[in-house]
Amino acid sequence: MAAFALGWSDADGRPHNGDGGKGVRPTIAMLSAEAVGGTAESALPGAVAVELVHAFSLVHDDIIDHDERRRHREALWKAYGVGPALLAGDALLALAVSRLAGSPEAMTYLSAALIELVNGQTADMAFENRPWHGPNAVTIAEYTAMAAGKTGGLLGAAAAAGVCLGGAPELADRMWEMGLDLGVAFQIADDMLGIWGDPRITGKPVYSDLRRDKKTFPVLAALAGGHPAARELSTLLSAGVSDEDSLRHAARLVEQAGGRGIARAQADRRLAAALEVMDECLPGATDLRALCASLVNRVH
Amino acid sequence: MAAFALGWSDADGRPHNGDGGKGVRPTIAMLSAEAVGGTAESALPGAVAVELVHAFSLVHDDIIDHDERRRHREALWKAYGVGPALLAGDALLALAVSRLAGSPEAMTYLSAALIELVNGQTADMAFENRPWHGPNAVTIAEYTAMAAGKTGGLLGAAAAAGVCLGGAPELADRMWEMGLDLGVAFQIADDMLGIWGDPRITGKPVYSDLRRDKKTFPVLAALAGGHPAARELSTLLSAGVSDEDSLRHAARLVEQAGGRGIARAQADRRLAAALEVMDECLPGATDLRALCASLVNRVH
Repeated sequence: MAAFALGWSDADGRPHNGDGGKGVRPTIAMLSAEAVGGTAESALPGAVAVELVHAFSLVHDDIIDHDERRRHREALWKAYGVGPALLAGDALLALAVSRLAGSPEAMTYLSAALIELVNGQTADMAFENRPWHGPNAVTIAEYTAMAAGKTGGLLGAAAAAGVCLGGAPELADRMWEMGLDLGVAFQIADDMLGIWGDPRITGKPVYSDLRRDKKTFPVLAALAGGHPAARELSTLLSAGVSDEDSLRHAARLVEQAGGRGIARAQADRRLAAALEVMDECLPGATDLRALCASLVNRVH
Repeated sequence: MAAFALGWSDADGRPHNGDGGKGVRPTIAMLSAEAVGGTAESALPGAVAVELVHAFSLVHDDIIDHDERRRHREALWKAYGVGPALLAGDALLALAVSRLAGSPEAMTYLSAALIELVNGQTADMAFENRPWHGPNAVTIAEYTAMAAGKTGGLLGAAAAAGVCLGGAPELADRMWEMGLDLGVAFQIADDMLGIWGDPRITGKPVYSDLRRDKKTFPVLAALAGGHPAARELSTLLSAGVSDEDSLRHAARLVEQAGGRGIARAQADRRLAAALEVMDECLPGATDLRALCASLVNRVH
């Protein structure tokens, strides 16, 4: 089941050359180690740990969100059942922790990322039951804290573990902060792909976030602005959108109300903040810099 | 939700003075630290970590097993839903890991216990789909490996973390092994309570293991013996038992076929092995010794 989750085998255990994900987090860990003069190999335990934590979180997220598809295939719980998938997720996490158990500096960041991840996930889930307008509506600040936790913690842990294992633990706190900014930028880009991305490329069902009342950045930004389309959008979302036509219309309203532009600008601003830290701490890390920038300008 | 899982509050968040569990694992950690000359306080991070891992495993187990009751109350998933409970379990595990992130020696045992726990749980779950007789029947050796993992690993980690944090890491490997034996004894005692215990005291529905084809030690031992009652038991179990009368009859057959006596003897043998290691490594640890013995002779 772990091999299926990692894209290495199909549901019958036969080898599968599929989409195992982009490997962003382990690459960040290894490039960060190299950027401080270590070898890529020195960061391997950290690289493996962050990728396993990422796999764990996807497996559990799909159960929680009832998402049936992941990376152009069935989600793990859909292929094997909820109980086995839950336990396989736990196994991935247990293996992740075992990779860094003997490296307390790197472990501290992995552990912090786990707590951030769960907090972010909890907030994201709670947001689904919050209204689209009124005093209980989700604020941009709440969204940002959620995204920093859900997505930024593990990116920060990847970079922090990388510099720890590469021999420069004194840079780890800055790398962690860098990761939080990068995570917010990454999550906003992800939200945008969920509305305007090509589902054949992303592998996610189109408009699934809108369908389930996910409080994504472009929609929150659209509603927070004063554009007339915002009012129509608010009414539409509060009534609940489920058919294709309303979903398409809602996506258009988000764009008209400025949500797409504000999201793009905010993602760019957070990315710039992350790159500024990187330029200061790891001045020669051109590959790492390019990788981070590509995360915010991606199509899948 | 964590407070509910730990028995500190009810489902509405009001304080609750209920059954938060026996606290066996943290007590083992603290007594182990004292036994090597450390303070109970020195073992606190380990004590908290093993109790949180235990809480995590109960929360996820109840989801996997569809158990609706835990400690005389609703199971967490029953009170809050599967998704939130799954995530609350993850949070308990994340907090556990954070307690020991900076203590690599103790962390190594906690991490090993996590892997053992998941392996044991996986085996236990897989056993439910195996037949009661024939070449694919679960063997006593398979049961023992499952119980050592599912129950022994965390007891071993409690004792090993305790001696590490108390200042005697050189004893940790022996404590880990001691925990595996103790875990098998503990699990057999648990299996016996599931058949012959008083559900008003244990807080578990009576005969739930028999009802769901759990491969418990007393039943496996009964079936492995040559007593005539074993054949009737095998036929009854293979047909599936669900009504109260058949369940009661099955329990009587397990006892007639010798399952109760063999289970008692095997639990005593494993406990004796654990106590032998303890007497050798921690000769003055009378409280710890008494605690471990009490686990195998308990009524809840």
